[in-house]
Amino acid sequence: MSSPLALPFPSAPAIAGVTAYVARARYKAWDRCDLTFVTLDPGTVVAGVLTTSKCPSPEVEWCRAALTLGQARALVVNAGNSNAFTGSRGRAAVEAIAARTAAHVGCQPSDVFVSSTGVIGVPLPIDKAEAGLDAAFAAEPCGWEDAAATIMTTDTFTKGAVTTAVIGERTVTLVGIIKGSGMIAPDMATMLGFIFTDAAVEPEFLQAALSKANAPSFSCITVDSDTSTSDTVLAFATGKAGNAVLADDDSVGAEAFRAALADLCHQLAMLVVRDGEGAQKLIEIQVTGAESDRSAHRIAMSIANSPLVKTAIAGEDANWGRVVMAVGKAGEPADRDTLSIRFGNTQVAEGGLALSGYDEAPVAAHLKGQEVEIGVDLALGDGRATVWTCDLTHGYISINADYRS
Amino acid sequence: MSSPLALPFPSAPAIAGVTAYVARARYKAWDRCDLTFVTLDPGTVVAGVLTTSKCPSPEVEWCRAALTLGQARALVVNAGNSNAFTGSRGRAAVEAIAARTAAHVGCQPSDVFVSSTGVIGVPLPIDKAEAGLDAAFAAEPCGWEDAAATIMTTDTFTKGAVTTAVIGERTVTLVGIIKGSGMIAPDMATMLGFIFTDAAVEPEFLQAALSKANAPSFSCITVDSDTSTSDTVLAFATGKAGNAVLADDDSVGAEAFRAALADLCHQLAMLVVRDGEGAQKLIEIQVTGAESDRSAHRIAMSIANSPLVKTAIAGEDANWGRVVMAVGKAGEPADRDTLSIRFGNTQVAEGGLALSGYDEAPVAAHLKGQEVEIGVDLALGDGRATVWTCDLTHGYISINADYRS
Repeated sequence: MSSPLALPFPSAPAIAGVTAYVARARYKAWDRCDLTFVTLDPGTVVAGVLTTSKCPSPEVEWCRAALTLGQARALVVNAGNSNAFTGSRGRAAVEAIAARTAAHVGCQPSDVFVSSTGVIGVPLPIDKAEAGLDAAFAAEPCGWEDAAATIMTTDTFTKGAVTTAVIGERTVTLVGIIKGSGMIAPDMATMLGFIFTDAAVEPEFLQAALSKANAPSFSCITVDSDTSTSDTVLAFATGKAGNAVLADDDSVGAEAFRAALADLCHQLAMLVVRDGEGAQKLIEIQVTGAESDRSAHRIAMSIANSPLVKTAIAGEDANWGRVVMAVGKAGEPADRDTLSIRFGNTQVAEGGLALSGYDEAPVAAHLKGQEVEIGVDLALGDGRATVWTCDLTHGYISINADYRS
Repeated sequence: MSSPLALPFPSAPAIAGVTAYVARARYKAWDRCDLTFVTLDPGTVVAGVLTTSKCPSPEVEWCRAALTLGQARALVVNAGNSNAFTGSRGRAAVEAIAARTAAHVGCQPSDVFVSSTGVIGVPLPIDKAEAGLDAAFAAEPCGWEDAAATIMTTDTFTKGAVTTAVIGERTVTLVGIIKGSGMIAPDMATMLGFIFTDAAVEPEFLQAALSKANAPSFSCITVDSDTSTSDTVLAFATGKAGNAVLADDDSVGAEAFRAALADLCHQLAMLVVRDGEGAQKLIEIQVTGAESDRSAHRIAMSIANSPLVKTAIAGEDANWGRVVMAVGKAGEPADRDTLSIRFGNTQVAEGGLALSGYDEAPVAAHLKGQEVEIGVDLALGDGRATVWTCDLTHGYISINADYRS
């Protein structure tokens, strides 16, 4: 059953230089495609942001090394097995996938990017990967939604986004697909997200733009405060749009491209929260008046990760006391007596006090909706941050306590 | 319905110099005692640890100021309203309670300690507090379990502990009562805990001993990662046991007293976890081999606060991959390839790899029990820490999403 917050997959055009294929590797006992293979024309540059987990998967380590070269010819994504915490056998599986793909495409193994998602601790079976790859090599090209469906695990709907930017006299297109539903508290990156564009860009520019776009998007969402070992966002640019190459901030269209990339990342990040495990409501938390943006971000994440705040929203309860609690535990500068809190557009507490006689009707109506906004103003400085999360429901418990590894 | 992990209230003797009374202040529409009043004989010294929340209740601020004097003649505890985030009206309520109690007892208001627990953001009604106090002043003395019952809010069972220490030729007794079930992630202190002893001690010694006992007990438990605005642990010593006064570490019996206090704090902290909202299992997490004790503590708390680990234990699933994830997200030094994990006494992963063919039967049996032990060895250094939490179940969601403020 799809999340009640699901959005339809957008109509996304092909990106010149990018061709996707899906196949059955049968990593689990399921009857669905679970291996995605994408070819990228020569000249494609790549950028990425990867998990900061101290226990990353071998795929993350592989991508981190390959990113230093800045070029890409293929992407392989496995669903159903994250291959994390699998020692040398896990590394061998990544190397085998890269080697086989490089031989097929006619490139270096380091031009092949590999991501895997699913259960931790089971080495990815090389025989299944190779059979799946061979099937993908023989398959017909597929569309974006097929690729988005094939990278899913516990996701309940396919997730994609599209945008464009005008660079000089050319219009470039950016398409992204993403998966993620639980174990979501990206710290620099999120689950698996892949962005494709026909823009011509230098890899250093693409990396800078992606890192900048990541900060207010993937790094500002949380479903359950748990950071994955496999978080990966990769952006591939084929250069087929024929625009003057974007090399630095002074290039014509640089700002337009950066804005488009930021928009795409925001769209993709919101889709992950909308598919948060058990989510019934999308919660936006806006913190203003903090001592710094960094402090505002920490306070916002403290609220977003509070089980008591998230269960209150699930219960449609304007329990701002729990918001105060979460501000207090963040450990950041805060003055109880200048704190103001609102739900939607209705102030419920101001200057350290409940607003006596505030109108409860619009608050109750706001909390009954699918999109809830919590505003906190600290009245200490100019620091601000916005983060997104979902509510904590019985659905989360059912999904995760009944899950068997 | 009591927690399945409940323990019976212990048989606890009276402490000379301490007399407890309970009464109905009717802070909520319930038919139960909700105000506790304790008199302490002249000469009683006091120590405390209080929440580090940046948004503490006025009671916490009151106690923090009163603790600087080191002496106590009375304690008043209100249940059903935490009086937190209530501005000047909240402060006025605390002052009124202290003044009325001081007049009755014949002491300074600063000798009266006040704690409140319950909903945040509603000023404690002074008229109800005063009526409740007057009823308590007229009541017959009560036993420890009545007092423990009267300080409860969402707790499902009364919590108390008792121990003794031999100091020179005297035996001193320590009795503690505590409440707490949700919003439990004490950072220096926990919910409301009160310890009474007949030992003769200098207040500085008592404070040092309490702070030391707090570190491995109240500061090592978490139910839901949410730190209360009202966390308070106070220890009162009447001196009636007639032992040679404990003044510093060289005093005869100092070590015995410290050990007894540490034991009592540990017992009380475990009772809070056993009454964690929705708890079905008590989880002990032992981290060894970290770079430092502090690093081990952070890793242990990262595991203890992970919703995915806690739901896995609720599902009796030996999902050690989620433990790896939680180690990785802690941000502390960790080497995936030297990490070992056990459930109970059974190693399930070693040196960065799942132990192939480990015996699953004892792991399954261990996870079916009420007390689950997770061991993580990092093989990096000598740092170690043990923390306690409970599993995350549908019960937690039911309690907190259906709660109305």
